[in-house]
Amino acid sequence: MIALPGPVVTLTTDFGEGSPYVAAMKGVLLGINPDVRVLDLSHEIPPQDVRHAAFFLASALPFFPPGVLHVVVVDPGVGTERALLYVEAAGQRLLAPDNGCWTPLVRPDDPPPLVIQLTEPRYWRPTVSATFHGRDILAPVAGHLSLGVDPRQLGVETRDWVRLERRPPVHGPDGWQGEVVFVDRFGNLLTNLPGTVLAEAGIRIFVDGQEVPQVARTYEQASPGALIALQSSNDALEVALTRGSAAERLRVGVGALVRVTRAAVLRQQPL
Amino acid sequence: MIALPGPVVTLTTDFGEGSPYVAAMKGVLLGINPDVRVLDLSHEIPPQDVRHAAFFLASALPFFPPGVLHVVVVDPGVGTERALLYVEAAGQRLLAPDNGCWTPLVRPDDPPPLVIQLTEPRYWRPTVSATFHGRDILAPVAGHLSLGVDPRQLGVETRDWVRLERRPPVHGPDGWQGEVVFVDRFGNLLTNLPGTVLAEAGIRIFVDGQEVPQVARTYEQASPGALIALQSSNDALEVALTRGSAAERLRVGVGALVRVTRAAVLRQQPL
Amino acid sequence: MIALPGPVVTLTTDFGEGSPYVAAMKGVLLGINPDVRVLDLSHEIPPQDVRHAAFFLASALPFFPPGVLHVVVVDPGVGTERALLYVEAAGQRLLAPDNGCWTPLVRPDDPPPLVIQLTEPRYWRPTVSATFHGRDILAPVAGHLSLGVDPRQLGVETRDWVRLERRPPVHGPDGWQGEVVFVDRFGNLLTNLPGTVLAEAGIRIFVDGQEVPQVARTYEQASPGALIALQSSNDALEVALTRGSAAERLRVGVGALVRVTRAAVLRQQPL
Repeated sequence: MIALPGPVVTLTTDFGEGSPYVAAMKGVLLGINPDVRVLDLSHEIPPQDVRHAAFFLASALPFFPPGVLHVVVVDPGVGTERALLYVEAAGQRLLAPDNGCWTPLVRPDDPPPLVIQLTEPRYWRPTVSATFHGRDILAPVAGHLSLGVDPRQLGVETRDWVRLERRPPVHGPDGWQGEVVFVDRFGNLLTNLPGTVLAEAGIRIFVDGQEVPQVARTYEQASPGALIALQSSNDALEVALTRGSAAERLRVGVGALVRVTRAAVLRQQPL
Repeated sequence: MIALPGPVVTLTTDFGEGSPYVAAMKGVLLGINPDVRVLDLSHEIPPQDVRHAAFFLASALPFFPPGVLHVVVVDPGVGTERALLYVEAAGQRLLAPDNGCWTPLVRPDDPPPLVIQLTEPRYWRPTVSATFHGRDILAPVAGHLSLGVDPRQLGVETRDWVRLERRPPVHGPDGWQGEVVFVDRFGNLLTNLPGTVLAEAGIRIFVDGQEVPQVARTYEQASPGALIALQSSNDALEVALTRGSAAERLRVGVGALVRVTRAAVLRQQPL
Repeated sequence: MIALPGPVVTLTTDFGEGSPYVAAMKGVLLGINPDVRVLDLSHEIPPQDVRHAAFFLASALPFFPPGVLHVVVVDPGVGTERALLYVEAAGQRLLAPDNGCWTPLVRPDDPPPLVIQLTEPRYWRPTVSATFHGRDILAPVAGHLSLGVDPRQLGVETRDWVRLERRPPVHGPDGWQGEVVFVDRFGNLLTNLPGTVLAEAGIRIFVDGQEVPQVARTYEQASPGALIALQSSNDALEVALTRGSAAERLRVGVGALVRVTRAAVLRQQPL
């Protein structure tokens, strides 16, 4: 277990920037620990999109130091029997519904996660609504943790939790097949293919059947309007349009098929 | 009066996330109290929508501990003779234009509010613009309050302020009639009817004339695509669509008529 | 040089509220200085719009006290040879790409800026990606500065940087010609003309050829639906619609031509 719980609590939700729900959670947190430092990560996770939340967390949390506590409320199952969890994994501490949003953070060589089911109502609000466990359970538990409560007091350790499978790219003799997993505000397409494939000689890259003709190191290495493939800041294969939006140009979004073929193979098996 | 003004100041505005107006207010606050902790509640209140602001505050502020200072800038009357107020009500402290946005916070059995008109320019910016009192009056006053200035030094106590009437649901022998007061990001419809009506036997629920066929305790209790009524996390009657948007399905928004009828009555008086 | 670097770091980016990029920067900052206080200014600068960023900074930063450190990531040139800068100018401290976004802050009578090119990788993340210098260079440098590192250790002083020219209004014997430089969330049009022109007798004001018939001191001084010109909270000429959106009414946006003519001249030279 990590030694020193810090007083920083981050919030990641799908409530939207206009929502009183986020504000209510901040109030509950401050009510329990007046010294807590609340940091918004995002409240614009698409509604109930656990897979997007997982991508978001895997992109952002590895840059945080240990000790910060991350509260994640993307919770399509609120009010059902799904558990709420305290998690220590990949050097991070989280509170989240048991929907797998945190599991892609864990790398094969990480130590096994510590996962505790929140079953101890002593750390919850006295009245728990059926539809807002973020405010009534997760926020008060986060407040108590930020005060130094031992996570093992929150409930019972479990080895059974929902795993969200990364959909790994398929790798065969003719190349790789993956998909777009995130479109950022600039219209850059982040894929689940590793950026390292760009180092191979003689590859060709296709998004939704449309060829990406150029490999570059940065956005501005190509001329304006050029469609390029590059290694993303998270070491994934990224497709971008210099000074424009690749998503708009290619008319694709999350889930679009990405193929990387070796040229030699392509001659035998045209797409 | 509440004893210990804390160094936490929250901001709620209709300026939008892209606005330099919010940033300028934060600068003014920090300039007066470098130790102030600023907490954004929302900057996405619909422009000049005092009624929405009132709903937002009533949903969020009761969860805050005493001592936090809430600055609210939704101010269609900026530059007119409308007053600016310091308010202690319902256990909360606010700075806001005198437009009634805070009055729905007060419950009948709360102690009477302390309301002070901000008339003492000593706590304002030296130059006050005609169009941005949030930056030039409210932010500096908040900074001084966070440093411990006695609210009574800010101006004169008043017993005269704008009351924003809640539009209460109409309750008659044939049932209740209310309206949708908020649509959240998930398309859930929050109404001004109390959730307790759901406990009555033999009721039927209609939104804009369309029947809500099912009462549930949580969103996921019904099958996907089911239209349900449930008690919201703020104890109101809420209408939702399991794994979807009730607002889209019913094509309604804020102001839509909500009727709850007793079945026996319905036989006599069909809608 | 400013004496006491404070522990407050503000963030202004074009990443969008939903972006994991902002969250990653916050993580890096906290990893270097666990006591840093992060303040979001905006993440909704239009993508890669340096001119908008410049307007935003010039509108907001003058209200901040010295000592605060402002990190700005609007960086169309990321990964190219453009430099990254530490700047002390106009009483503010910034970290930003060398794209001129900060130069409109400097007034003619300000002392000359101190500008240091970030060349010392000791203060960067060990691995620097080609596409995200905000996370890999600016955020860690900000963390170190907030710990008290002397800015001169970050690299070499330079006197050569990109100047973003304000496009000043043209002033001739027949009046002024300028443009809309910002449209706020209310549809108010901020121009690059000084508000002082409104004091002149007998002027007429045109936006995109459409006359603004009335001059007012505040939005509510005119009747609802009236198109008015007034002095903005930043002392510019502003065009607004009482209880409505001037941008919608006039169907104009950033870049629209604004003419202020003297009536006498207008008689000779009709528009």
